[in-house]
Amino acid sequence: MAEEFLNRIRHKDLRARVTSADRAAELIRDGMVLGMSGFTRSGEAKAVPLALAARGRAEPLKVTLMTGASLGNDLDKILAEAHVTARRIPFMSDPGLRRAINAGEVMYIDQHLSETVEQLRTCQLAPIDIAIVEAVAITETGGIVPTTSVGNSASFALLAEKVIVEINTSQSEALEGLHDIYIPSYRPTRMPIPIVAPDSRVGLPFIPVPPERIAAIVFSSKKDSSAAVDQPDGDTRAIAGHLIEFLKNEVAHSRMPHHLHPLQAGIGSIANAVLHGFIDSPFHDLTMYSEVLQDSTFDLMDAGKMVFASGSSVTLSEARAREVMARFESYKGKLLLRPQEISNHPEVVRRLGLICINTALEFDIYGNVNSTHVMGTQMMNGIGGSGDFARNAFLSVFVTKSTAKGGRISSVVPMVSHVDHTEHDVDILVTEHGLADLRGLAPRERARVVIANCAGPDWRDALTDYYERAVTRGGHTPHLLEEALSWHDRLRRTGTMAPQ
Amino acid sequence: MAEEFLNRIRHKDLRARVTSADRAAELIRDGMVLGMSGFTRSGEAKAVPLALAARGRAEPLKVTLMTGASLGNDLDKILAEAHVTARRIPFMSDPGLRRAINAGEVMYIDQHLSETVEQLRTCQLAPIDIAIVEAVAITETGGIVPTTSVGNSASFALLAEKVIVEINTSQSEALEGLHDIYIPSYRPTRMPIPIVAPDSRVGLPFIPVPPERIAAIVFSSKKDSSAAVDQPDGDTRAIAGHLIEFLKNEVAHSRMPHHLHPLQAGIGSIANAVLHGFIDSPFHDLTMYSEVLQDSTFDLMDAGKMVFASGSSVTLSEARAREVMARFESYKGKLLLRPQEISNHPEVVRRLGLICINTALEFDIYGNVNSTHVMGTQMMNGIGGSGDFARNAFLSVFVTKSTAKGGRISSVVPMVSHVDHTEHDVDILVTEHGLADLRGLAPRERARVVIANCAGPDWRDALTDYYERAVTRGGHTPHLLEEALSWHDRLRRTGTMAPQ
Ligand SMILES: CC(C)(COP(=O)(O)OP(=O)(O)OC[C@H]1O[C@@H](n2cnc3c(N)ncnc32)[C@H](O)[C@@H]1OP(=O)(O)O)[C@@H](O)C(=O)NCCC(=O)NCCS
Ligand SMILES: CC(C)(COP(=O)(O)OP(=O)(O)OC[C@H]1O[C@@H](n2cnc3c(N)ncnc32)[C@H](O)[C@@H]1OP(=O)(O)O)[C@@H](O)C(=O)NCCC(=O)NCCS
Repeated sequence: MAEEFLNRIRHKDLRARVTSADRAAELIRDGMVLGMSGFTRSGEAKAVPLALAARGRAEPLKVTLMTGASLGNDLDKILAEAHVTARRIPFMSDPGLRRAINAGEVMYIDQHLSETVEQLRTCQLAPIDIAIVEAVAITETGGIVPTTSVGNSASFALLAEKVIVEINTSQSEALEGLHDIYIPSYRPTRMPIPIVAPDSRVGLPFIPVPPERIAAIVFSSKKDSSAAVDQPDGDTRAIAGHLIEFLKNEVAHSRMPHHLHPLQAGIGSIANAVLHGFIDSPFHDLTMYSEVLQDSTFDLMDAGKMVFASGSSVTLSEARAREVMARFESYKGKLLLRPQEISNHPEVVRRLGLICINTALEFDIYGNVNSTHVMGTQMMNGIGGSGDFARNAFLSVFVTKSTAKGGRISSVVPMVSHVDHTEHDVDILVTEHGLADLRGLAPRERARVVIANCAGPDWRDALTDYYERAVTRGGHTPHLLEEALSWHDRLRRTGTMAPQ
Repeated sequence: MAEEFLNRIRHKDLRARVTSADRAAELIRDGMVLGMSGFTRSGEAKAVPLALAARGRAEPLKVTLMTGASLGNDLDKILAEAHVTARRIPFMSDPGLRRAINAGEVMYIDQHLSETVEQLRTCQLAPIDIAIVEAVAITETGGIVPTTSVGNSASFALLAEKVIVEINTSQSEALEGLHDIYIPSYRPTRMPIPIVAPDSRVGLPFIPVPPERIAAIVFSSKKDSSAAVDQPDGDTRAIAGHLIEFLKNEVAHSRMPHHLHPLQAGIGSIANAVLHGFIDSPFHDLTMYSEVLQDSTFDLMDAGKMVFASGSSVTLSEARAREVMARFESYKGKLLLRPQEISNHPEVVRRLGLICINTALEFDIYGNVNSTHVMGTQMMNGIGGSGDFARNAFLSVFVTKSTAKGGRISSVVPMVSHVDHTEHDVDILVTEHGLADLRGLAPRERARVVIANCAGPDWRDALTDYYERAVTRGGHTPHLLEEALSWHDRLRRTGTMAPQ
């Protein structure tokens, strides 16, 4: 092992634990629960999972795989196809794993991202046998310095029986100092989490694991996957435009200061594009308290619009990753990465008063949102952090394009086929056509605004017709139960929601 | 005015503001927003609302009525029938008002009970013109001492342009000292809420209103309504039994201490009966951090099982109210009443790690819960605090009888007709038949357990048949969209969910 690599293990005794990925993977036995680093395709352990998949192809080997969130480098696909993943917790976004989940081959427990480690530390989920954590370095005291994500790594490492550390030499040593590892104390004698602003630093810059629990150290050099987000298009620019107009009006009415409140933006192309839209806004001195920091965060910093961003991971496109890492020192004072329990913590989200912008697959005329289940049955990704944020937001915004699949699907429907966010957790809905401000409105009032402002023009009459016939039956939230899901059923049968 | 009554106004200058309810009600003009005390039929202002209803019968007068939660003394019925209530926020449980809401005559904005005042203080709801607050007394400094509930009264009084105080002489002066009024600071510079245990006292024993804002003081002597909860029956005793067995097992496996975690129990007969069931349990030194304290809280204290209870109101049956008030001093060190924003605050709920027990109207085989909408359309009461608690609970339990309306309705259904609590917020489901522990289970696994353990025997085959046919279509959460709501539709058409 080259000296320069070994220098990343500053606790000298631990250098003896360096081994190959194959040897490290031998620690893993059939039926174990693994807690792996990785959040929104950043900072996942890369070598040991591949060795595990290879074993899985050769021998019976099934595990419960817990992570922060989605994994990069096709690991979720590779592990699912090797039939190693029997259970998967709490989030994924890989098409191959998605297929296995929807076929009932993998049991998927899709959770609020702040909750997984709470359930683990109270033994409400089966305990972690082995944690596998990607690191930039190991400190003099044996502390693990994470890479481009924190996710659940800290609690996994602290709760696991054994820890495998993967030191990734392609991850810049400049990342050290970026992380703020704070773990809430045990209940019922827990103290308040002392974060009072996005830049509050309250923890350690490493995960403080007792060195004797580090069972193996592996070196790897595989890069993080690049973000695969689409660039802003006309529709997402229109969505951003409507939201910014709305926020300008809130500022004009003194409901918010000029620097707004700290922003949270969800995963995916649309949220990234909407955040990007703030570059052309009049707002300045913006801050973020979010989960994943995408290209748009750095675009806003470069444009002088954003002064600080707290997240749990950094996921960038290839070009942006090169630029950002080249002058990382210039960003370092403006960034913090926290455990996802803290980036998403209801206590902190509510205290800071976040503006939360998340993406819906579909929403209904009464303001209920489906973020996860296509046609009520097929899992897309998972609820992720959207529930942690939307429930506790100062302002909870959901965005989506008004139609999908070339116009065959209306994303504004009579009744959503699955509910992730109830009407109580949704303040603002935005599509390319406009914005519906649902605050203080009763369901019957919301229906009119949602149809008029958000639905695609081709679908408005059918929605109005549904609503008006439903109202003749009465009720606080009028519906025609025999028709409420008929748009989805028609899509299933005919490939389009439109009547033939 | 008798001297003994006037002595309740210790700020002497304010005695000049004493007037009649009719005169006080004249301050209220058409179109105003009123913030009234009252929570779970306790501590509501009683005289001014009646004067208002009388005016509403004689002249055009419509208001937005905000409260803590439900009002006693039929006030919601009287105000709705006088057509005074145009909008109602955030909770009600009155059959007369319910009828008007479901007919679309009153616009009802049903909210998480911790959120209303957050929206008010950030001007996201129309501002309060007049607050009307029932009080035991007014202190030397003009502070308002609430009666049997705090609800939203503190923030209403602090945010309103004018305050009308109703001193209720039937409310015991012994109540003074019971309240803990803490108001979170403005965001984004809010500090942590310093509550770290159910008995943490962090605020003032009165609402600190500037005396000049008190526009009128009215005397009344009408009593709080008695709680109308049904006594425990065989079914609710069975539900309590299943839950206590489960908790015993959690303690046996060291997942909880012998005194459990602080308990929250929802409104209504079933929650009250379940809590009552703890009397015969082996647990001791129990605490509550809840919304409404019902008979069962005092039964548990008398039985030596419960050492402290924090709530936002006390709602008792007639007999229990007499007993409790007769020896109130003996309970006083064991009780605190807080603003509902604090009793239900996500920050505190999560920090204390509550065991939350709320009631469902129905739940589905995948663990989604409907607490509010009969047949997906007709509002029953509202979501109340159940969402504040369930989302942030250490353990989130929903209870219901397995059938309703003499067996014509199964409360376990293929798909709930309205979602208040998603699968992510539900750990445990209990009916008289048994308990389903959904922690760590994927939807397909949950379905089997829910059907086997919770459904009524007459409905199990039909549920299994639905589930098995749905599975043949695949999906993470299998459904037959064209049939998912057919049980409810059959009920609507034929009066029963059972096939003819
Ligand atoms: C909802 C979500 C899938 C949207 O992702 P996105 O990349 O911004 O949006 P897209 O419009 O590209 O949609 C993604 C896919 O869903 C499809 N889709 C969108 N609306 C749809 C609808 N109403 N019905 C069916 N499919 C739909 C799109 O066609 C696209 O399909 P493709 O992958 O085959 O091209 C994504 O935001 C998500 O998983 N959210 C849940 C988790 C979350 O919110 N986390 C945030 C907290 S950090
Ligand atoms: C759900 C809720 C209505 C149950 O109340 P309860 O008094 O414990 O339960 P009951 O079994 O007596 O049910 C109340 C009514 O609903 C009816 N009901 C119950 N299940 C039903 C179902 N599946 N379909 C239709 N009606 C149903 C009952 O028949 C009864 O009707 P009735 O008033 O005509 O007799 C009540 O708990 C509630 O409003 N919850 C929402 C708010 C909340 O949870 N707050 C707690 C936080 S503090």
